[in-house]
Amino acid sequence: MGKQKVILEKLARTFQIRHVLLRQALAECLGTLILVMFGCGAVAQLVLSGGSHGTFLTVNFAFGFAATLGILVSGQVSGGHLNPAVTFALCLLGREPWTKFPVFFFFQTLGAFLGSALIFGMYFDALWDYGQGELIVVGNNSTAGIFATYPSKHLTLVNGFFDQIIGTAALIVCILAIVDPYNNPVPRGLEAFTVGLVVLVIGLSMGFNSGYAVNPARDLGPRIFTAVAGWGAEVFIAREYWFFVPVCAPFLGAVMGVVLYQLMVGYHVEGEAREKHEEEKLRRSSVTTKVDA
Amino acid sequence: MGKQKVILEKLARTFQIRHVLLRQALAECLGTLILVMFGCGAVAQLVLSGGSHGTFLTVNFAFGFAATLGILVSGQVSGGHLNPAVTFALCLLGREPWTKFPVFFFFQTLGAFLGSALIFGMYFDALWDYGQGELIVVGNNSTAGIFATYPSKHLTLVNGFFDQIIGTAALIVCILAIVDPYNNPVPRGLEAFTVGLVVLVIGLSMGFNSGYAVNPARDLGPRIFTAVAGWGAEVFIAREYWFFVPVCAPFLGAVMGVVLYQLMVGYHVEGEAREKHEEEKLRRSSVTTKVDA
Amino acid sequence: MGKQKVILEKLARTFQIRHVLLRQALAECLGTLILVMFGCGAVAQLVLSGGSHGTFLTVNFAFGFAATLGILVSGQVSGGHLNPAVTFALCLLGREPWTKFPVFFFFQTLGAFLGSALIFGMYFDALWDYGQGELIVVGNNSTAGIFATYPSKHLTLVNGFFDQIIGTAALIVCILAIVDPYNNPVPRGLEAFTVGLVVLVIGLSMGFNSGYAVNPARDLGPRIFTAVAGWGAEVFIAREYWFFVPVCAPFLGAVMGVVLYQLMVGYHVEGEAREKHEEEKLRRSSVTTKVDA
Amino acid sequence: MGKQKVILEKLARTFQIRHVLLRQALAECLGTLILVMFGCGAVAQLVLSGGSHGTFLTVNFAFGFAATLGILVSGQVSGGHLNPAVTFALCLLGREPWTKFPVFFFFQTLGAFLGSALIFGMYFDALWDYGQGELIVVGNNSTAGIFATYPSKHLTLVNGFFDQIIGTAALIVCILAIVDPYNNPVPRGLEAFTVGLVVLVIGLSMGFNSGYAVNPARDLGPRIFTAVAGWGAEVFIAREYWFFVPVCAPFLGAVMGVVLYQLMVGYHVEGEAREKHEEEKLRRSSVTTKVDA
Repeated sequence: MGKQKVILEKLARTFQIRHVLLRQALAECLGTLILVMFGCGAVAQLVLSGGSHGTFLTVNFAFGFAATLGILVSGQVSGGHLNPAVTFALCLLGREPWTKFPVFFFFQTLGAFLGSALIFGMYFDALWDYGQGELIVVGNNSTAGIFATYPSKHLTLVNGFFDQIIGTAALIVCILAIVDPYNNPVPRGLEAFTVGLVVLVIGLSMGFNSGYAVNPARDLGPRIFTAVAGWGAEVFIAREYWFFVPVCAPFLGAVMGVVLYQLMVGYHVEGEAREKHEEEKLRRSSVTTKVDA
Repeated sequence: MGKQKVILEKLARTFQIRHVLLRQALAECLGTLILVMFGCGAVAQLVLSGGSHGTFLTVNFAFGFAATLGILVSGQVSGGHLNPAVTFALCLLGREPWTKFPVFFFFQTLGAFLGSALIFGMYFDALWDYGQGELIVVGNNSTAGIFATYPSKHLTLVNGFFDQIIGTAALIVCILAIVDPYNNPVPRGLEAFTVGLVVLVIGLSMGFNSGYAVNPARDLGPRIFTAVAGWGAEVFIAREYWFFVPVCAPFLGAVMGVVLYQLMVGYHVEGEAREKHEEEKLRRSSVTTKVDA
Repeated sequence: MGKQKVILEKLARTFQIRHVLLRQALAECLGTLILVMFGCGAVAQLVLSGGSHGTFLTVNFAFGFAATLGILVSGQVSGGHLNPAVTFALCLLGREPWTKFPVFFFFQTLGAFLGSALIFGMYFDALWDYGQGELIVVGNNSTAGIFATYPSKHLTLVNGFFDQIIGTAALIVCILAIVDPYNNPVPRGLEAFTVGLVVLVIGLSMGFNSGYAVNPARDLGPRIFTAVAGWGAEVFIAREYWFFVPVCAPFLGAVMGVVLYQLMVGYHVEGEAREKHEEEKLRRSSVTTKVDA
Repeated sequence: MGKQKVILEKLARTFQIRHVLLRQALAECLGTLILVMFGCGAVAQLVLSGGSHGTFLTVNFAFGFAATLGILVSGQVSGGHLNPAVTFALCLLGREPWTKFPVFFFFQTLGAFLGSALIFGMYFDALWDYGQGELIVVGNNSTAGIFATYPSKHLTLVNGFFDQIIGTAALIVCILAIVDPYNNPVPRGLEAFTVGLVVLVIGLSMGFNSGYAVNPARDLGPRIFTAVAGWGAEVFIAREYWFFVPVCAPFLGAVMGVVLYQLMVGYHVEGEAREKHEEEKLRRSSVTTKVDA
């Protein structure tokens, strides 16, 4: 085992990356890859098996627990956002620098692209079998919906926009509560499980309109992949350029979520903590003054 | 980022509320909003999709985990009751002052009202599509049941009353055990998850009669919303003024739950702790006496 | 609130029970009541709704999480056995005195009796509606299976006996591992959740033959209740005196589970701990000797 | 109780095994037995009940939580691998000695063999009832798929190989993240639950092709059992010697998982920890030098 150890150590030193932002970006990439691989995999299993190996509930479970696992894998390195709307909300609150936003957005989208590519490879035979030799975007035997989201028939573009805003706002309110350092309702180490629960619940109650993307990277990455892999440009054109909605609306939802949480809970617990801190300081300085005197 | 920080700090100081009861009321409002938004959203998804995007189980999961999330968001501020029957039980036991009861009741109902309004907006297209242009209270294509509860056909009013009493008593027994300071069976920080489990189990086993409201605010708020939003006064009249049952019976259930838990477990663990405390005091005072002597 | 406090304190002192075994028996009674109320409630919901409000999975979830809640409510007082086979296994291992066994057996059965009575009351209308005015034990529209277990058609009595032995042995092996003081794989306070998981998994994989009673009290209590409540003595006679199997086989399963766990894991971790302890003692005594010398 | 204690102590001393590797092997055997007993039991329940007592989701839950329970039972003794591919990955990383690999592989396969034997006994009547007196490997009323995995009709051998590689790689990436001492995202004692979640998610999203063995022992043990118990040599020959795929591909998947995790996250968190450690040492030695001077 001595030789193995030497080789392992050498490998470790060779491949170690010291640039912090790059490491964080890689972690976000792997985390989002896991989220999309398991999540879209569950949609593939549901669609391609014709319902025998899945239901909408299994998709909800898969996306929820996939979020948990993605956050667990990447969380210690990058915080485990896996979602540009989350990064955006944290930048708005001044908890992450704005420079991270474009880098994370790109690597999250890249991870989502790679995750859907893996599912494409894994279900390659099943995809061609189901589509009878074709890759169809909308209609019977369509398979593009496995990777990116498309709206239900009843949905207008305006309602769809509102749907994505509410869904993302709900996500952000819950995440902010979970990670709020002044509120911290969850034992350390359980944040990832709780965020997974949030994603699960959103799927259980807000998934009927258009499949609850609530995440620009999760939707855009796989959509680009399908455009490249054979479904063609129609994935962007379909349903009145729907692709635009899950890329843009979540950021508005993030703003709404931040405002709502801060007004209803955040500012007050934060303020209380700040006041305690200031009193403490005042008390100490007066003590110091006395001691000096 | 310096400028952003200044603005954020200014906002924080401007919007901070210092009145404790108002802060608690706001937290209860947001928590109940989350409970009803996710819970009724799941019912909407089940009903409006005609069963393709949900089952009764998904509704049970949604209400259970929505309770968990609502408690997590509000718990550190207000205790996360989200239910006037819970507030009532804690007042009965002398753990909360009675003045809180009407305030919490109002804000919990308000939160439930707002949560159902959000679901109304989110599924606006789907609601009109499903009802074919009408908002119907009872019968085919009825949609009022998405928001408030209505009894099954087999249920008499007397059995319905008993159903709500038993359901709420079961809820209260479990919650009292979970938060009992002398019993404390759950690690700190996991109370919200355990209460969510209780709500889930109640839905799995006590949901067939009339949809397990077991919470006056969760039922009344959305019912008022539907009355205002277009379903009309029939939501109160339907099924022999059924709306009265989930508003009143839970308080009787709360009394029954408190009595049952205290007689079977509560008084004994509490008494034991008190006796130990008194012995301790006695021992110390005798030690002091000896030392004095 | 001053007056309320005085009254509450008085009540607390009046109803406090000081007899330890009686308190433990009451806790077991309440815990088993909760287990059976939620568990059999879920079966009632599945059967009486004709499958619209439940599936076999919801019954599995209900029994699993009901076990968790029952243990949480009673655990700090009595250990939360809720099952005479568990009490039996712990007596076999010398961790509980044998005198507890008959007392716990009786109160667990009583709790199961009361729990099924509550479900009978809760679904009173639905029971008569479903049975069209009759309470039937076996066959079409039968409802006795809501409360006690009856074997599937394919099952012989011998296979049924083996089924209950294996099921209980699996339960006991997992419980022994979870509460083993020398193995303790689960963080303190999570035992109840883990045991709930065990009950859930047993239902998912061992429920098809005869409904996984694996608990004499959970089966006998409700069976006695149905005999009294109107189904009559047929509940004992049906299917070649089947009632005998879930009352007796679990104790054999408990023996098998204890032997299997101890031989494969228990004795070794225990032995290691004992040896460490003895070495420690030896080392200390030799140190003492040296010092003496 | 005095006599009982003497007997128990005697038994404990008689059956205690002191050979560490044998104890670990026994624990792996029992753990894998539990995994396969509950997991294959759920498949049996689904298949033999014709879908009335199970769905693909219940199988996913059973395998996930069975993994959790198997790890809990064996984890403190042997680490709870329950899967030769996991043992292989840990050997590759130098965290387990290579000598353990063949021993664990054998005992894991033995445990899986015994677990499927128990399920065979438990569902003996149901198996003959379902197969109408025959034990069939492939086609209508086939029951061999309850124990070992067989590919779906659409799957080619190449895609099947890729399927098992991806599935195992996903498993290994998540497990490495969960147990990484430099990343440790999960509170101590929750690893088993998290690994169960991983197995659940893999089943939800990667189970349609060939039933997600991703574990050579879980597949080979039950396959050997079916060959012996009456299904005959066809279990190895069927579907172009498919049995070879879930025995070999997982090891390739383990390599891929190790490489992926180390390159994307592992080397960097490890390197950071090592550098901190080295700096610390340097700082100390320089302090020592100064002191010496």
